[in-house]
Amino acid sequence: MKIQDIIAKKRDGQVLTKEEIEYFVTNYTNGIIQDYQAAALTMAIYINGMNEQETTDLTLAMAQSGDILDLSELGLVVDKHSTGGIGDKVTLILAPIIASLDIPVAKMSGRGLGYTGGTIDKLESIPGYHTNLTIEEFKKNVKEINISLIGQTLNLAPADKKLYALRDSIAATESIPLISSSIMSKKIAAGANKIVLDVTCGNGAFMKELSQAEKLAKTMKKIGELAHKETVCIITDMNEPLGKTVGNSLEVKEAIEALKGNMEDDVKEVVLTLGAYMMKLAGKGDNIADNQQKMLEQINSGKALEKLKQLVKKQGGDVTYLENHEKFEYANYILPVLAEQSGYITDLNAQKIGEISMRLGAGRIKKEDTIDPSVGVALERKVGDYVEKGEILAYIHANKEETGKQEQKCLAEIYQIGPQKKQKKNILEIIE
Amino acid sequence: MKIQDIIAKKRDGQVLTKEEIEYFVTNYTNGIIQDYQAAALTMAIYINGMNEQETTDLTLAMAQSGDILDLSELGLVVDKHSTGGIGDKVTLILAPIIASLDIPVAKMSGRGLGYTGGTIDKLESIPGYHTNLTIEEFKKNVKEINISLIGQTLNLAPADKKLYALRDSIAATESIPLISSSIMSKKIAAGANKIVLDVTCGNGAFMKELSQAEKLAKTMKKIGELAHKETVCIITDMNEPLGKTVGNSLEVKEAIEALKGNMEDDVKEVVLTLGAYMMKLAGKGDNIADNQQKMLEQINSGKALEKLKQLVKKQGGDVTYLENHEKFEYANYILPVLAEQSGYITDLNAQKIGEISMRLGAGRIKKEDTIDPSVGVALERKVGDYVEKGEILAYIHANKEETGKQEQKCLAEIYQIGPQKKQKKNILEIIE
Repeated sequence: MKIQDIIAKKRDGQVLTKEEIEYFVTNYTNGIIQDYQAAALTMAIYINGMNEQETTDLTLAMAQSGDILDLSELGLVVDKHSTGGIGDKVTLILAPIIASLDIPVAKMSGRGLGYTGGTIDKLESIPGYHTNLTIEEFKKNVKEINISLIGQTLNLAPADKKLYALRDSIAATESIPLISSSIMSKKIAAGANKIVLDVTCGNGAFMKELSQAEKLAKTMKKIGELAHKETVCIITDMNEPLGKTVGNSLEVKEAIEALKGNMEDDVKEVVLTLGAYMMKLAGKGDNIADNQQKMLEQINSGKALEKLKQLVKKQGGDVTYLENHEKFEYANYILPVLAEQSGYITDLNAQKIGEISMRLGAGRIKKEDTIDPSVGVALERKVGDYVEKGEILAYIHANKEETGKQEQKCLAEIYQIGPQKKQKKNILEIIE
Repeated sequence: MKIQDIIAKKRDGQVLTKEEIEYFVTNYTNGIIQDYQAAALTMAIYINGMNEQETTDLTLAMAQSGDILDLSELGLVVDKHSTGGIGDKVTLILAPIIASLDIPVAKMSGRGLGYTGGTIDKLESIPGYHTNLTIEEFKKNVKEINISLIGQTLNLAPADKKLYALRDSIAATESIPLISSSIMSKKIAAGANKIVLDVTCGNGAFMKELSQAEKLAKTMKKIGELAHKETVCIITDMNEPLGKTVGNSLEVKEAIEALKGNMEDDVKEVVLTLGAYMMKLAGKGDNIADNQQKMLEQINSGKALEKLKQLVKKQGGDVTYLENHEKFEYANYILPVLAEQSGYITDLNAQKIGEISMRLGAGRIKKEDTIDPSVGVALERKVGDYVEKGEILAYIHANKEETGKQEQKCLAEIYQIGPQKKQKKNILEIIE
């Protein structure tokens, strides 16, 4: 087999065989195939596409390119994954609820790059919380308390890691087969038996249009089917940030409040929908409304928050931060953003708020960057809310006064206010 | 400007600006843009194409990426170039004829990779012939005797060199904009004012189909027009080798015979057609038939062969080899290939004969390879000829007995013999 022949086939719009895809992934991972050859093939895939079988073969080849986490001793593990959003603290809320319902949650997450840190970075804003457990400790914790959330200690899907970095440098990120195989390969390598995917859609997501999000969702569902990992996709809105905070410790605090029952409407709808399907996949009930009711009971009874405390304690974190979240260090400057006119908020561009969060220091451009846990944006009003001129819309949490003031102006401009109340849908589609 | 944005534009089928193309070529040449980014852009160009203006901009940017040979002091220089064929000794015959007609021939050629060496390699099979003159010597020779043929001593179109090597490793060779800009950039950098292109077409050429060859020819003609280098393209057949020999010193001997008037029909037609248009571009007459008559007179009078002797002498070569070409060393084994049946020769696959030539050692796969001047194939019969069973069709000239015997069998199988005489056209189309 020759890589040139494989490139030529895809260049000419032909279908690659499983063997050809495996040849590429194996030899790209071990360095025999060069970056420029992978780049040419990737561009050909971007332009000419891949069918479902090819995409699945690519997914499985990438999943098998490194370690595969074996969670079989834990029983049926349902994983949850989001394709990425601004202010997405869903895992912090959902994982303890699910674990409290006696469904094992064993989640190994990468840190990733983005406007804020990942779930692991957010958890690390709790002093003492260890994310680098051994696999043995990880599994032991799940067995004992039904939950463990750790960083990526294994070498999961290294082919995906290499290809993902390459795609970024050659303008080949926004491709359905490439995105879906990237996500699914990591999920499969991370040991999930069944998967619930939160496919975000809007200006703050990879997929800007519903038609694209649908296509991505259907492709991932199909990969799941062909790879014998049952998958449900929930398409959620990401045109404004999820919930009321964007930033690491700010989001942890919002999650703690949510587990006390103080949940923003959009967060609530997303958490309950994703969770109800996780329960369904775990064999804990087919009626979605009933499942949601059970989840609410776990919140109201305090059992879900208790589970989060157990998790934090088990992984070395200071639980007093959960009992009194005022203990989280505040940023040096908390600057209010005021409404410049009265009316309904009609738009609150998620991507632009993500960029503010990034500039404040909450995110990471390169792997080596450190994130600032205390900075971010706290939104007091969101799309659909009515405000009077001069009322507080939001706060910028900054550690540098200069940056803070700039972003204060920036955020004021992002708030669009008009005379008509805008209806908002949080769950756009469920593909099961 | 960002290379990712340029890649994304071409990926999406948009037209690149002159500035974007120059940015790519400049920064790829100096190493700021990486091979994998160039590979992605190249694949996007391969799949989505380039219009004539883009192709011209790419050509000029590549021409300007290194040295540009200034031949203005020599007057109007008409260059001739072939897109590559098997047994192509046209330059060896044509250049002396043209120079003998008082038209300056100043040709700097790369060695290239292929089934035999290039013109420069062939000339080096004459003992003593120097191909690495200084630019001053080169120009001085042209001023004194109207002709000099040397190797590529300047750094001509380094961007093309880099991109050409890359294209080969990523299955992106057969693209009209990429082939045409590669050829034309080298011609422009080599100082030509006007260009006659021999666009070969057939199994032994880049372009297998006439429609493709026409497209390539028209594109190069258009580039010439936009770059103010008048260009004429002659599409010639390359389904069987040109002339009766394939190999380095074998072809030199055939060229010497041709300049004595012993020219194969196909070689004669190609040489006279290309030459007549070179004369026309040089302002030496618009009537093609008259021009061809003048060329024949230069052969018949011995002036053309005399010019070749002058060239060889001037560049240090042993002229006695031209006076008695039996002096060229023969290969160790000269093995006849016999007709297995009687009939007309209907096919003599040029590419397969090229591969034989390569396996015998006449060609070069890597730049570092050395070529064997004496080996090759001598064809006694060609398409359209009638043979009786048992007659000699051809000879294999080999330096290793084993290889020679294998290729002897191989060549016998390549000769297709049937009951019907096949008509052959040598000049397929003239695009002026």
